[in-house]
Amino acid sequence: MTNSKTYCIIMAGGTGTRLWPVSRDRYPKQFLKVEGAECSLIRDTWNRFAGLIPEENIVVITSDRYENLVMEHLPELRPENLIVEPYVRDTAPCIAYASMKILMRDPEAVTVVTPADHLIPDVDEFRANLGEAISYASENNVLMTLGLVPSYPDTNYGYIQVTGGTGACYLDGARKVKTFTEKPSVDMAKVFLGTGEFLWNAGIFVWKASVILDELEVLLPEVMGPFAGWKEHLDEPAFIQRAYSDCLRISIDYGVMEKTDKAWVYPAKFQWRDIGTWSTISEALGKGDGNSNVTISDTALLLQDTEGCTIIPSRSNKLIAVKGLDDYLIIDTEDVLLICPKKDNKFKEMLGGLAMPGYETYK
Amino acid sequence: MTNSKTYCIIMAGGTGTRLWPVSRDRYPKQFLKVEGAECSLIRDTWNRFAGLIPEENIVVITSDRYENLVMEHLPELRPENLIVEPYVRDTAPCIAYASMKILMRDPEAVTVVTPADHLIPDVDEFRANLGEAISYASENNVLMTLGLVPSYPDTNYGYIQVTGGTGACYLDGARKVKTFTEKPSVDMAKVFLGTGEFLWNAGIFVWKASVILDELEVLLPEVMGPFAGWKEHLDEPAFIQRAYSDCLRISIDYGVMEKTDKAWVYPAKFQWRDIGTWSTISEALGKGDGNSNVTISDTALLLQDTEGCTIIPSRSNKLIAVKGLDDYLIIDTEDVLLICPKKDNKFKEMLGGLAMPGYETYK
Repeated sequence: MTNSKTYCIIMAGGTGTRLWPVSRDRYPKQFLKVEGAECSLIRDTWNRFAGLIPEENIVVITSDRYENLVMEHLPELRPENLIVEPYVRDTAPCIAYASMKILMRDPEAVTVVTPADHLIPDVDEFRANLGEAISYASENNVLMTLGLVPSYPDTNYGYIQVTGGTGACYLDGARKVKTFTEKPSVDMAKVFLGTGEFLWNAGIFVWKASVILDELEVLLPEVMGPFAGWKEHLDEPAFIQRAYSDCLRISIDYGVMEKTDKAWVYPAKFQWRDIGTWSTISEALGKGDGNSNVTISDTALLLQDTEGCTIIPSRSNKLIAVKGLDDYLIIDTEDVLLICPKKDNKFKEMLGGLAMPGYETYK
Repeated sequence: MTNSKTYCIIMAGGTGTRLWPVSRDRYPKQFLKVEGAECSLIRDTWNRFAGLIPEENIVVITSDRYENLVMEHLPELRPENLIVEPYVRDTAPCIAYASMKILMRDPEAVTVVTPADHLIPDVDEFRANLGEAISYASENNVLMTLGLVPSYPDTNYGYIQVTGGTGACYLDGARKVKTFTEKPSVDMAKVFLGTGEFLWNAGIFVWKASVILDELEVLLPEVMGPFAGWKEHLDEPAFIQRAYSDCLRISIDYGVMEKTDKAWVYPAKFQWRDIGTWSTISEALGKGDGNSNVTISDTALLLQDTEGCTIIPSRSNKLIAVKGLDDYLIIDTEDVLLICPKKDNKFKEMLGGLAMPGYETYK
């Protein structure tokens, strides 16, 4: 059930440098078109919500460097619904600031918070699930997150343990959360799957703006302290500048969800990918060759003695001829070619250390 | 000594597929600009000879597929000096046909025959050496080739043993040839260098047109037979078509130079590279990183645990980030990326077998 009191916050400030060199500090992954998609991830995110939530209630929060990119990808976005953060401070300050903006417009607002870079092919199922979560959160003072039944022991996702015992993750309807676990080891992930009590944390939240702000006041004074007086000063750039400058850099998961007793999860049924790392991209890529090599659909592969490689070419119909590589990333872009073992993709740190200008990974 | 009786034949019909994917069947290496050069290899070849031999005496022989490329790179080339071969038949038929054309114009012609894809940085020294070889060949009925004192035991070049015993390769002036050896093993090449009797075969020949044609008649009836009657029919396309169709595919080295008793060599002093294989290109590339990795001058390299690689990027200022590769070729072009061990670069054969259209290696 959605109505004029339902809002959406699209968080589009991430730099996505774990996907370097495809995703860059200056053009991060939310603005990229993923293979098989018809548009960029942020555009796809907008479309997914626009069918469920009134467009005038969708806000996008990002950093000043991506302001123009956001408007280019989302021309319908109302200028007053574009919120610009002066500094990168992770999701807790981001959600706090955007929620304050919304609460000023509507003290009863129910808000969905979503990243801009998820891949969710089944939009109808997504909207149906989210509608139920919104309905629950509008009637209860809970901090709701969406959870997905895991299909394999992924070690890049966070896991949510639900109450209710063995197999409870398969039950319908919102459930109270028992524990959160960030990126488990593969052995632990296998145990999780075996219990039927664990869901993947999709990082999509549903709550009343008033409820999350109240909980932030209680649990994160290091974030909310610098915003003291926000109801009077929220539209003053100098106020926001100083608040961001002073507030703690912390995620909403670590700062609130893992500590609150209001955490609930809605077990969702839609397909979902967080395009966060090369390993999740490798999982998402359809085209393989029988030796666990994967690439995008129109690449011509000529591989010998080569297994388990993830290959992203710089252009359509490129021929990639490789011999004698196992478990490598081969990521080609117009100005960077990366060839390295999958288990050892630390080039962005090296780059940062070497300060090579022009191949911007860090700002 | 050169004069109006001195001619030059530039052979520009090679496909250069050993340098795939940079050199292609449709755009072979003679039309490429090598790193550090100011123009394409064929243009550079023209400039080298144009200062020594009258321009109206320089002819270019190529196949019909490269006719337009030749005229584009050599706009000064007189249309009547462009000779087009109907089929690829290696150097013996090529030299035979071009020499017939020249002999028709001047029965006393002295001719230099050169490939179009050599790298010779020191033009003055080249012209001085070649001038002396021309002078000798105009006064003697010899088949002269240029030889270079080898600087390391390259296994991709042919070697010429000169008469005169130990150290004779360092003596000045033309010398009679004792033996030719194609691409020796590295052990044999080391022995060659130790004796001081061996020169690299530059594949640049100097002789009277009449002398090479007479020797071809004697040694290669499989080539000259189909051209019988050429003095009457040389300008008839149907005649040339049939002669080429019927004649043997054979190199001038194997068909004539290794068998004749008229073989002489002029020990030359200029620097020289046959840009024929990736290994000679690796030798020619200046820019290294202390771990035997080489690339062209404006590439940004970020290498970890990587040694002995030859890296050619698809564009200027590309960053190549590689981890954990030893002795690999990494050759990136706009539409092909090749990553393979240097010792095992057989992709062009694979490609031919797979008949992948668009990445033309073979015609």
